[in-house]
Formats: sequence, structure tokens, C-alpha cells
Amino acid sequence: MATTPSATRRVFLASSTALAADVWVPRTVKGYTTHEVAGRLAGSLSEVGTSKWDLDTPALCVDLDRLEANIKTMQAAMRRFGLATRPHAKTHRSADIAKLQLAAGAIGVCCAKLGEAEALMPHGIDRICMTTANLSPSKIRRAMQLRKRAPGFVQAVDDERNARDLSAAAQEAGVVADVVVDVAVGTRSGIPAGEGALRLAKLVDTLPGLKLRGLLSYDGGAQHITGFAARKERALANIEANAGTCAAMKKAGLNTEIFSGGGTGTYNIQHLVPGFTDVQVGSYVFMDMQYLAIGREDGQPVYDDFASSLTVVGTVLNNRFPGKLTIDAGSKALTLNVPHAGVIGEPGADYNAGSDEFGVITFKSDPSRAYAMGDRVEMIVPHCDPVVNLYDVMYGIRKDRVERVIPITARGKSQ
Amino acid sequence: MATTPSATRRVFLASSTALAADVWVPRTVKGYTTHEVAGRLAGSLSEVGTSKWDLDTPALCVDLDRLEANIKTMQAAMRRFGLATRPHAKTHRSADIAKLQLAAGAIGVCCAKLGEAEALMPHGIDRICMTTANLSPSKIRRAMQLRKRAPGFVQAVDDERNARDLSAAAQEAGVVADVVVDVAVGTRSGIPAGEGALRLAKLVDTLPGLKLRGLLSYDGGAQHITGFAARKERALANIEANAGTCAAMKKAGLNTEIFSGGGTGTYNIQHLVPGFTDVQVGSYVFMDMQYLAIGREDGQPVYDDFASSLTVVGTVLNNRFPGKLTIDAGSKALTLNVPHAGVIGEPGADYNAGSDEFGVITFKSDPSRAYAMGDRVEMIVPHCDPVVNLYDVMYGIRKDRVERVIPITARGKSQ
Ligand SMILES: Cc1ncc(COP(=O)(O)O)c(C=O)c1O
Ligand SMILES: Cc1ncc(COP(=O)(O)O)c(C=O)c1O
Repeated sequence: MATTPSATRRVFLASSTALAADVWVPRTVKGYTTHEVAGRLAGSLSEVGTSKWDLDTPALCVDLDRLEANIKTMQAAMRRFGLATRPHAKTHRSADIAKLQLAAGAIGVCCAKLGEAEALMPHGIDRICMTTANLSPSKIRRAMQLRKRAPGFVQAVDDERNARDLSAAAQEAGVVADVVVDVAVGTRSGIPAGEGALRLAKLVDTLPGLKLRGLLSYDGGAQHITGFAARKERALANIEANAGTCAAMKKAGLNTEIFSGGGTGTYNIQHLVPGFTDVQVGSYVFMDMQYLAIGREDGQPVYDDFASSLTVVGTVLNNRFPGKLTIDAGSKALTLNVPHAGVIGEPGADYNAGSDEFGVITFKSDPSRAYAMGDRVEMIVPHCDPVVNLYDVMYGIRKDRVERVIPITARGKSQ
Repeated sequence: MATTPSATRRVFLASSTALAADVWVPRTVKGYTTHEVAGRLAGSLSEVGTSKWDLDTPALCVDLDRLEANIKTMQAAMRRFGLATRPHAKTHRSADIAKLQLAAGAIGVCCAKLGEAEALMPHGIDRICMTTANLSPSKIRRAMQLRKRAPGFVQAVDDERNARDLSAAAQEAGVVADVVVDVAVGTRSGIPAGEGALRLAKLVDTLPGLKLRGLLSYDGGAQHITGFAARKERALANIEANAGTCAAMKKAGLNTEIFSGGGTGTYNIQHLVPGFTDVQVGSYVFMDMQYLAIGREDGQPVYDDFASSLTVVGTVLNNRFPGKLTIDAGSKALTLNVPHAGVIGEPGADYNAGSDEFGVITFKSDPSRAYAMGDRVEMIVPHCDPVVNLYDVMYGIRKDRVERVIPITARGKSQ
């Protein structure tokens, strides 16, 4: 994973390109109705209508204008590139956001865990590609139950024995299960490209309980390479053998209608891969400190093809120790990912999730303003996926007010 | 925080002292009843009775024998030292475990967040000390609602203005709220020891809505110092000024019936602090890789005063890349804390939460056995508090079987 050059960090925490000042500068929302005030005092009203700066903290907030723009931008780019989008729901674990992506034209979503798919499906999200293989008898059974409920469910497989087990379970469940072969890029998951992968695809094609739909090839290692040229070169080199396997499958008369992969870092590179059909982009809806640092196609250091929409608002609990602030958002609110959370409006600050419940902001140069105890600070999250997974809801913010409370439907569904 | 000397790490991952072989070596549980088998196939039965090795993974497991022994050991030690226990519930966020601690003789529990207290109180946990100050009008109101429901609720305060706000809110709620002054050790939270702290205590004592109960002094920085002698020296030096403030309060006729602090690393040091009343120990119920490495009072490198009871069971998803295994427990299952999770039975292995959903186990020396795809691995958690917070339940295990499913009552309640 990339480390942020601190110069870049300074640039984008101060910059008005990445962070339009009118969105990010704390301002008091005026004009609560009497009803709203009474409701909030009694604790009986939902947070809808509340100012972002009055929420109990730590509060996970998503700027809706930015979120919607990101979804639109990605969809438009893929139309230009001639690819489809099949966004990865592991990022947001939210039925509401999956629906926005599908409404914008996504052909389905991906899930990393069965628990995610089980949580999303009752909300009408039924075109789901499981990008992780499921090996145990119990998980295979759960996957086949999902396939039974939704014909749009597609399961990744990367092993012959697992393919046979799946086929048997599908038959037992009375379905023919759609399957994609997960072909490895790097050494995390999947079967290496080449002969073995082709053999597995052929096996899937012949097994009575399975229907081969194509292949997956996600390159996790390429996404965060700093600098577009290096990222492009590496991503294309890494996937060459996989594209070869895709071609060999096609040549052997096998189905390759799905050749899916790619992420937010390579969304504008994947169309150069022969046979490629769709991107599994995840983080683009939110962005995070990791992605902001990887650099744009035109060489600009801040990767702002998509707008940073996801923040955590915290409260200053202590301002009396020189050069630092203690806030109420620690590693249970912001994780330990690097680069650290970025404090908006404070390019000279470093946030550190020093303890589970407390974070510490250290100032290397003078802060932009005086912070009193009880003041709010807003931070761009270090890495979106695991931060989202810590919260039950995120507040959908428009013009500094909560417009809707978005449940994180599959929060914690890691089994 | 301490880094584990890898020699120590090797010792305790292999050692039969820290990890009795009969508890940790995977073994098949035989003898499921027909009812259990049918229930598990239909997915209709809870996990009670299931073998730890058949659970869907990643699964958070607590060994009940060890958990119960830890609670007993701590209580007995404090009886010897003449102190009370007021265990910190931030560690387990579980009503069931809090009840075990209270049943063993704890005088109450601590909470770091209002959300924790709000979640635990309906389960009859009503002697709660809030160790974090609450500053915003909304949080002050919530704290006073808790005080209204439970006379055993005590709120930390470290600021004059906050004390006045609390007093006003208490009066509005029709209560006199019990308050302790949080006196800083280090520079995280609290008011520095000395004149200012004494003045604050006097103010609290005079405010009409508040009743002064004493002071808190938790030394987060001392807990993980490696080596008992160094830990003791530092802990006692750090808290000297706080003990002075306690004495000055007493001399001024102020209430010091509570002088609370200490953690698992200093539980056997705190009784040396004049005026000290009770320890807020948290991690001792579970232990973790961070604590196992700090060293025992007798110089032994493994800190096994309490037994490591908390583990995550994962599944091998890929074994085909030389020298490593990909498992289904990544940073959303084990966090990024260091030292990394310890793979039980594999002293030569390093676990790395390389991605959100995948973990990678790398072998520096030959593994103790061959791992097939689908095999289970069990890991000691790196740091207990934030790992627990990722799960809805932990499986209470006795002799490798699930005896009870323990809800993590306040999971995610970080506001
Ligand atoms: C298999 C798979 N596909 C897609 C993605 C989405 O990638 P990104 O968040 O970089 O857009 C991920 C993220 O880890 C992934 O694991
Ligand atoms: C205020 C306070 N007291 C007690 C504890 C418990 O400490 P330990 O888990 O080291 O026993 C903590 C843990 O961070 C804490 O923050």
C-alpha cells in the first residue's frame, strides 16, 4: 500500500479543488423548527434535519452531493470505455447505496462475504457476484440458498474439489448455480492463470449442478500504486496472463460473458484488457486518504477523479496539552489504517488513533484556529471499507444538514 | 505500546504454559445428536453445542474456563491487595461478562462511552462509572438521563465549565449527580494534577447539582511497558502527583472515597499508591498479544498472570502460494493492531491483516502440519478491545464446544 508523501497530504487537505471550502468549513445551521428543537431535546426525533455539527460524535457522515456525483462520474466513464459496472458492496455494505448504483446503471453488485449478500438480498439487491470462494459445507449450503432465492447470484470458485462440492450442493438445492472462476492476480486468492485455470473452467462447464459464466481477476496490489503511468504498466502486466486464460477459454468454446475485476485505482485502465467486461469498483463512492494520494492520470498528485465524500466528525475532549488535541474518535471510530485520517482545514495536523476510544491530533504548524473543548473536527477517513464497518448508520448530509440516515445494512456481516 | 520481541512471541505461541495443548490443538468433536445435525443442516438451531471447528468463520471465541479463571484470579489478587475492582466494560462491551464480574465481587463497572452505558443498563448493570467526560449539551443530557435511572451512575469531569453545565443539567433532570474528577496521567485526558485539579474538585463540591465522589487517574501509557520493574517504576512515578492531589483533597475535607485507575498491566502495582481504592482493569478477562508480551513480575517474559482466552477462528482459503496461507479473517476480523495476531500452534508464522477481508499467514519456518483448503486456524487477537467491537457475538467455548452465545451488547456504541 502506498504511503502519502506529506507534501501531497498538505496540498489536498488545504486545497479547494479536493475540498470545496463551502462544503467543509464548519458553519452553524440556523432555522431549526420549533418541532425539531422540541424533538431533539426529547430525543424522540431521528437525526433528519439536524446540523452535521450538532450530531453526537463520533459520527460517520457522507456528503450526498459528492456521493451521487461519484456514482454518475463512474457510470459515465464506463460508458465511454465500453465496460459495465458491477460495484463492490464490501465498501459500503449498504442496501441504499447499492440501490443508487443499480439505479445509475450498474449490472449488479459484488459481495466479499455471504453475510453481506444475505443482508442485502432482502432489500431487493438480487444480482450479486460473490467474489470470494466458499469452502465449508455450511457456507456452500448458504450460498446455494442464496442462488435458490435469486437467479442473479453468481459464485466464485478457484478449486476443483470446491467446484465438485458446489455442484453437489446445487443439485441438492434443486438449482443450477452460476459460477465464475477466480483467476489469481498476485498471491492472495484465486487459481493461477494458465493450464490449471483452464482445466478448472472446463470442469465447471461439465459439472451438472454448475453453469460457467466466465472469470474474475481482481488486482488488489495494483490499485494503490502511486503515479498513473506506473499503475497502468503494473496493472496491465499483471493481468496479461489472465487475459490469456480468458482467450483460451473462449477458444475452447467456454463462456466468458463475465471477465470482471479492477478497482477505483485502475477504473480507467481496465478497458485496455482484451475481453474485459466490467469493473468491480468499490471505494470510488467515498474515496479516502489512501486513494487521494495515488495521483491522477494527468500527473496531478491528488487523485480527485472522485470526490472525497466520507468523513467522521469528532469532538475535542481536551485542548490543554500544548500542540495537541484529544478527540473522542480513536481506533474504534477510524481504524489504524495509514495514511492516517486527514483533519479537514488543518494541513499541518496529524491524526493518530492512539487509543481505542481517543484520537490525538498533533500540530506540526499552527492550527488554523483556536479549538475549544467541545468543538467539532471533521476528518477524511484513512481507508473507507473498515471504517464504514464500525458504524450502524452513516448520516447522509446535504448542505450541512442530515437529509437521511443510511443504515449500514451488512455492518459486521463478515462470516 | 510495546513491540513483541519475536523470541518471546515464539516462546508463548509454542509454550504449553500459556497455551495448554489440550485446549488449543484442533480436534473433532464427535457425537452430535441427530437433532443437532438436523438443526444445523436446516440452519434453524443456534450454535450452542456446535464444535468450535465447525463454526462459520471468522468466529470470535472465548474459552469459558479461562475467562472464569481470569475473573477469579483478579478478584482474589485485589482482596489480597486490599483494593476493590471496578472492571472496565470498554473491553468486552458485554452485559453477560459484566454480570460475571459483578457476581465475583466487582463494586461496579466502568464505561468509556455513553452508548455503552445505555446498552448495558437495561441488563441490570447499574453501577457504572463513566470514565470519559461528556461535553456537548446532548451528551450531558443523556448522561443525566442515565443518572436519573440509576443512582449508581458516576460521571467523570475534568473542566470547570463542563462541571457547571453538568450541574445545571442535573438540576433540570431533578437529580444530584455523582461526579469524579478525572486527573490526568500523561496528556490524553483529564485535568493535570495539582492546584487546578483541587480547584475543580472544590467547585464540584459546591455546585448544587453535583456530588463529589473522588477522582480517577488512569495511566494508559504505563500499562504495556515491557518488564515489571520498569513498569512499576514508571507507573508509580507517573501517579505521584495525582496521589498528592488526592491527599490535598482529603485535607481540604473533600470526598475521596473513589480514587480509581490502573489496568491489567499495573493491577499488582496500584495498591502501592496512597489513598488508592479500586482498579479499572479491562483486558485481563481476555488478554491479547499486546499484553502477553509485557513480562511477569518474576521476570518471565510471557505475562500469563491471566490466561489468553480470546481467539478468532478462520478458514484457509488458499494454500497454493509457497510459504503462505490466505485466510478469511482480515482487518475487519482482527484489526491492524500490533503485535499481529498469533497463530496458535505455529510459532514460526506471522499473521498479517493485509486486506479488509483476507489475512495472510507467512511461514518463516516450516509449518507444524500441512494445511488444506478449508482447514481452520485459530489466532490469539492482537488487542482485545477493538477486535471484540467488530463482532455481534462471541462464542463461549467449553471443551471445544459452544456452551453459550454471548451477545456483545454494546458493540459499536461509540457515541
Ligand atoms: C475482489 C475485489 N473487487 C473489487 C474491490 C474494490 O476495489 P476498490 O475499493 O479499490 O475500488 C475489492 C476491494 O478490495 C476487491 O477485494
Ligand atoms: C480509563 C481506562 N481505565 C481502564 C482501562 C482498562 O485497561 P486494561 O485493558 O489495560 O486493563 C482503560 C483501557 O484503555 C481505560 O481507558
